Amino acid sequence: MSMVYAQRMNRVPRSFIREILKVTENPEVISFAGGLPNPRYFPVQEIAQAASEVLSRPDDCGLQYGPTEGYLPLRQYIAQRYRDRMGLAVAADEILITNGSQQGLDLVGKVFIDRAEVVAVEQPAYLGALQAFSVYEPQFYTVPLLDDGVDMDHLEHLLGTRRVRLFHTVINFQNPSGITYSPPTRRRLAEALGRTETVLVEDDPYGPLRFAGEPAPSMRTWLEGQAVLLGSFSKIVAPGLRLGWVCAPRPIMDKLVIAKQASDLHSNFLCQRILYQYLMNHDLDEHIATITAAYQRQRDAMVQAIESHFPPEVTFTRPQGGMFLWATLPASLSALDLFERAAAQKVAFVPGTPFFLDNGGLHHLRLNFSNAPEDRIEEGIRRLGAIMKQMLVQKA
Amino acid sequence: MSMVYAQRMNRVPRSFIREILKVTENPEVISFAGGLPNPRYFPVQEIAQAASEVLSRPDDCGLQYGPTEGYLPLRQYIAQRYRDRMGLAVAADEILITNGSQQGLDLVGKVFIDRAEVVAVEQPAYLGALQAFSVYEPQFYTVPLLDDGVDMDHLEHLLGTRRVRLFHTVINFQNPSGITYSPPTRRRLAEALGRTETVLVEDDPYGPLRFAGEPAPSMRTWLEGQAVLLGSFSKIVAPGLRLGWVCAPRPIMDKLVIAKQASDLHSNFLCQRILYQYLMNHDLDEHIATITAAYQRQRDAMVQAIESHFPPEVTFTRPQGGMFLWATLPASLSALDLFERAAAQKVAFVPGTPFFLDNGGLHHLRLNFSNAPEDRIEEGIRRLGAIMKQMLVQKA
Repeated sequence: MSMVYAQRMNRVPRSFIREILKVTENPEVISFAGGLPNPRYFPVQEIAQAASEVLSRPDDCGLQYGPTEGYLPLRQYIAQRYRDRMGLAVAADEILITNGSQQGLDLVGKVFIDRAEVVAVEQPAYLGALQAFSVYEPQFYTVPLLDDGVDMDHLEHLLGTRRVRLFHTVINFQNPSGITYSPPTRRRLAEALGRTETVLVEDDPYGPLRFAGEPAPSMRTWLEGQAVLLGSFSKIVAPGLRLGWVCAPRPIMDKLVIAKQASDLHSNFLCQRILYQYLMNHDLDEHIATITAAYQRQRDAMVQAIESHFPPEVTFTRPQGGMFLWATLPASLSALDLFERAAAQKVAFVPGTPFFLDNGGLHHLRLNFSNAPEDRIEEGIRRLGAIMKQMLVQKA
Repeated sequence: MSMVYAQRMNRVPRSFIREILKVTENPEVISFAGGLPNPRYFPVQEIAQAASEVLSRPDDCGLQYGPTEGYLPLRQYIAQRYRDRMGLAVAADEILITNGSQQGLDLVGKVFIDRAEVVAVEQPAYLGALQAFSVYEPQFYTVPLLDDGVDMDHLEHLLGTRRVRLFHTVINFQNPSGITYSPPTRRRLAEALGRTETVLVEDDPYGPLRFAGEPAPSMRTWLEGQAVLLGSFSKIVAPGLRLGWVCAPRPIMDKLVIAKQASDLHSNFLCQRILYQYLMNHDLDEHIATITAAYQRQRDAMVQAIESHFPPEVTFTRPQGGMFLWATLPASLSALDLFERAAAQKVAFVPGTPFFLDNGGLHHLRLNFSNAPEDRIEEGIRRLGAIMKQMLVQKA
């Protein structure tokens, strides 16, 4: 029996990264491949305490069905953080709780993407967005990233020549490149999009994890009516709670709620209650400061190791936050070759190719620094550098 | 700023039921409208204990990212239950953990439905399936339900004249009708579908809640390669855990996993761990027996009250399990009129119309018996019967 599948299924890329992760299950492998937060900083006891409190109230413990939009006090908490920390006038009814921000991407795809409509993404792109949007069969256009954000000349040309349904950006400490949009690029982006009907998807799971530089304004500052913001508790509390959110203006939110209802009725209500109790018991910003300080040490360890061990021909980004750094090999070296040789020496990373839609990315590496201790980072980078030097000698 | 939304968003019905539920938040209202399990039987303390055990293992407590397919021991447990209780040769890699069975419907839609392809559903239909599938813009065909399952003459004619991509059925104690497919109807359905490429979606959240009659075989007994089974812990443990599953043969499962990854990476890992610990600590079948005995008492209370208070012209189903009963008014009475008059007297139910795609269902009521105590059931049915009698007199 051969089934007939929907055509969209031919278009959805399986996550290469999750395939690599299966390889890196061997604990001897030093892995810079995943995008995992450091589990040392999961507030395990605090979550246990919160769970115990929630489940000690049998008449109101989150075990019944919940509202599609999410637990109202949690939505109020998120809206309050937007007001307090980013100066954005966000109301609780502009917040929808989702299963991580990945589901936010799926809902945005459901609500906005018709088959063959134009969706613009960064190059390199966030793989989860490519996967989520592919299901809705858009025509993708890629816009290169420069050091201070998307190439605005390129994007303005695209906006001037095509009707673009949405533009997706990871605006702070981008996955995979580590790049952050500068304030002037943000303002120019707002001006360009403000002249169109293009929806801006500001995907910001890493924004709170800033350890250097100054925070820059959210795009909602200028584009209140057409900006959809995605956030997540995965990187600042724990991914296993599987809770993120979408922040969108009311007309868009109405559509997102319908899409959410059709997708899974509502997000896990028990975990929403546990998370909210945790947030009431503890100061989230103190916890974020602890994580951020650790990631800064890990990034510093990686940058110093790269400066010591990589050949000088290799360039790399120095992210001001987040979890990833992006290295670029000289054109004579292939990241796929490097990947195979590194795997043999028990070091893993993600080659650039899955982040490119045009078969590019052959000379790039995504290096995660959040999930390995500093001594292992030093050792893994040393091994990678030695292989690169060998490869350069062989090519010469 | 007016946004351009995807065309599919014009097709997705907002759940009328969830709108009614907002009305019934008034605790004075006797509500037969929802589809809520009785919270008296949520194993609150047992879940609290399981949560405490899981979160006392800081190195393995479900707070990190988890596998897309779900927690392997939980998948093994579900496969084992299919083998032990239904005699089905199901392997753990044929199980995918989802956010309730609603997400199973969304994933099935993603994987199988191309725009304008034919999807067959029961009439009356399960509203959640209509919502989930609508997103993928099929052409719906409805097939009437008879007392012992779908009208096979009708379905066979449809299968003979159209290429049907999938057929969705709630095979036991259907929502909304309470109807269960008889063994002969199941066999005839299997023979008819076995001659086609049509995928059978056997949606079975209520199957374990049987309080009368004999269990009948799953359709997978005959249609192993083309049956997709959906199950849920919402009705047998608690909905707030938001955990269900899809059981599908491997070629279909490969596609479902890709769709799941694109949708939200994986289901809530902490709750998967808590649920599994609960299932290890306790005998699920004992717990189900407790729920089932209670629902039998509640159904009996409703049936007896209907026999005492409804006019004899009203017919109704006597379900052998599940949570719903379906009543049919004489053709002169409108369920929508009844709904408005009942609301004024603080009784709620769901009129039949949202379960019909052809503007039918005007003379039907879905009555939930699982979420009201027996004395409130008696009182609510008494009020409904009195209104019906008044309406009949006014029409006469």
